Amino acid sequence: MSIRIGIYGYGNLGRGVELAIQQNPDMTAVGVFTRRDPNTVKTLTGIPVYAANDVLKMQKDIDVMILCGGSATDLPTQTPELAQYFNVVDSFDTHAKIPAHVANVQAVAENAKTTALISAGWDPGMFSLARLYGGAVLPEGKDYTFWGKGVSQGHSEAIRRIDGVADAKQYTIPIEKAVRAVRAGENPELATAEKHERECFVVVKEGADKARIENEIKSMPNYFAEYNTTVHFISQEELNEKHGGLPHGGVVIRSGATGIDKQHKHVVEYSLKLDSNAEFTSSVLVACARAVYRLNQGGMYGCKTLFDVPPAYLSVKSREELLKTLL
Amino acid sequence: MSIRIGIYGYGNLGRGVELAIQQNPDMTAVGVFTRRDPNTVKTLTGIPVYAANDVLKMQKDIDVMILCGGSATDLPTQTPELAQYFNVVDSFDTHAKIPAHVANVQAVAENAKTTALISAGWDPGMFSLARLYGGAVLPEGKDYTFWGKGVSQGHSEAIRRIDGVADAKQYTIPIEKAVRAVRAGENPELATAEKHERECFVVVKEGADKARIENEIKSMPNYFAEYNTTVHFISQEELNEKHGGLPHGGVVIRSGATGIDKQHKHVVEYSLKLDSNAEFTSSVLVACARAVYRLNQGGMYGCKTLFDVPPAYLSVKSREELLKTLL
Repeated sequence: MSIRIGIYGYGNLGRGVELAIQQNPDMTAVGVFTRRDPNTVKTLTGIPVYAANDVLKMQKDIDVMILCGGSATDLPTQTPELAQYFNVVDSFDTHAKIPAHVANVQAVAENAKTTALISAGWDPGMFSLARLYGGAVLPEGKDYTFWGKGVSQGHSEAIRRIDGVADAKQYTIPIEKAVRAVRAGENPELATAEKHERECFVVVKEGADKARIENEIKSMPNYFAEYNTTVHFISQEELNEKHGGLPHGGVVIRSGATGIDKQHKHVVEYSLKLDSNAEFTSSVLVACARAVYRLNQGGMYGCKTLFDVPPAYLSVKSREELLKTLL
Repeated sequence: MSIRIGIYGYGNLGRGVELAIQQNPDMTAVGVFTRRDPNTVKTLTGIPVYAANDVLKMQKDIDVMILCGGSATDLPTQTPELAQYFNVVDSFDTHAKIPAHVANVQAVAENAKTTALISAGWDPGMFSLARLYGGAVLPEGKDYTFWGKGVSQGHSEAIRRIDGVADAKQYTIPIEKAVRAVRAGENPELATAEKHERECFVVVKEGADKARIENEIKSMPNYFAEYNTTVHFISQEELNEKHGGLPHGGVVIRSGATGIDKQHKHVVEYSLKLDSNAEFTSSVLVACARAVYRLNQGGMYGCKTLFDVPPAYLSVKSREELLKTLL
C-alpha cells in the first residue's frame, strides 16, 4: 500500500516535493493545498489542487502532510495547527527558534496521536546529523560548518529591498584557506569574516546611484557588515543568464583526536554540492515523510527531528536488503 | 549513574576502547577480559584485567560488553555466546556474512532480553550510514565507496605470508581520476582496477629472491591480481620509521539527480581521514555502547545495527542540548 502524501504550499519547495515523490515508488502525491485560488494553480505532474481551507475534508485520504511554507510566518502557526489532524513534516529552519517550535508542536501532536517531524532538510537536517554523529564518535574535537558556494535567498532579498535595486543574487562563499586549515586538523579559531565571504550581483534601476547602493550593501548589519563583500553591477540579461539557478551546498567537519597523548588526529567530513537547494531539501522532506508514517504506525507520537529517527525508517529498502547491500 | 563497560579482548581495538571511554564522562571501564594469563597483561590506564573464563562472574557489574576480537574466528562465536548474558557491541566486518551473523545473534538476544549492536565501526558502520542516508534522500543515483589512502592489514598480512618476506605494509590508494569523475557527478562505471591501486613496502629476508616475491604479490588472486600494484623493497628500519602507523580512511559518495528532466545534479560526500584506524573504530564502538544501553533500557531487545539506532541515542548530550546546539 502506497503512503499517501499531501503537499501544503506550492512554491519551489512544494514543486520539489511533487517531483521527489515520483522517485519513491512506495508513495503517492494526493494533491497540493494552496491559499491561492486552486483554479489558478497548475501542478507540474498534473496532481490535483485543493484550497487550503478544505484540508480537513481530506483527513482520511492523507497519511502524511508535507508543509512547504516558509519559516518566518507560515510554519510557526501551520505546523502546530495541522499536527492536530495530520502526521506532518516541515523544514523549519530558524535555528534559534527550534526549541520553541518543538515545544509548540509536541503538545499538539502528542495529544492528537500524530507524529510531526520538524526542521528537516539539509541545514537543519542532514548537516545536523553530521554534527551529531561527528561529536558522538569524536567527543574531544571541534565542529565546523561552512556554507556554499551557493545562493542565499535571504541575502539576495535583503539587497533587492535597497532603493534603486531592480534585482540581485548573493553568493555565500566559504573561504578556502579556512576550510584547508580545518581539513588539515589544525582546529583554528575562526572569526565570522574568516569563514565566509559574500559576492553580490546587482541590477540597478535606471539612474540609480551605484556608489550609494554598494555602500548600503556593504554596511548592512547582520547580513554584510561583518564580511568581506564584493559587489558587481551587471545587466538583468546577464543576471538571468549566468545566475538563474539556486545552487547551494557546504560542508560539516568534525576534527578530533584520540590516543594516550591525543597524538592521532581524525577528520570527518560531510559535504553537499547541490544544483538545486529547493529540490534537494524537498527530497529530504519526502524521505522523512516515509519515516513519519512508520513512526506513527509504531505508536511513536509527538514532535520528532531527524535525531530521533532510526536511519532505516528513511529508506524504501527492507531490513534484509539494507543488511545485505548497504551495511 | 555511569554506564559500566567491559572490554572483551585486548588488542589494538581493546586498547582503543579503553582510551575512548576516558573521553566519555558518562561511562566507566570496568575492566578487560582476556584469554591470556591476566597477570601478563598490563592495561594502558590501569583498569583491571580478568580471565575471559571468569566473565560470567561479572554479569551484574557490566552494562555493556564491547567485543574487541576479530571477525574471522572470534566474533562469529563470541557475540552470540556473550549476548546470552550481556548487552554487546561488536565490529563484525565480513560484509558477506553479516545477514547470517545477525540471524545468529538475534535469536539469542531476543530470548535473553539483551541488546546487541553488531557491525559497528566505520565500514561497516559510519560508511553504511552514509550509504543509507544518501540513497534515501536521492533515490535516483549511484553509490561509490573509495577506501584509503590507508593501510590494509589483511593485505599486509597476505604479503607477510610469502616465503622470504620478513615484514610488509600495504597501502590501498583510491585512484584520484575516478574520485574526481564521481565528484563531478559523471556517474562513471568503474572496474575494480579503476577505483583503487595498491602500494606495497616489503622487507625481505637475507638472500631472498625479490623478483619472485614481487611476482607472487602481483599475481595473488583476490588480493592483488586485479589491481595495479607497485612493490617497493625497503629496509626494516625504513619500514618502522616511515610506515609504522595504521592510518586509513576513505569516502562514500552518492551522486543523484532531481528535477522534471533530472537536470539538477547533487553530490553528497562523507569522508574520513584517520590517523589510527583502530582508535577511530573503537571510538565508534564506545558511542554505540551508549546507544545499546539506552535501547536496552527502553526495552528494545535483539540484534541491531547502526541502521536501527536513533542518532540521539549515540550522543552524551541531552535532547534539549541537541536541539539547541546541533540541530
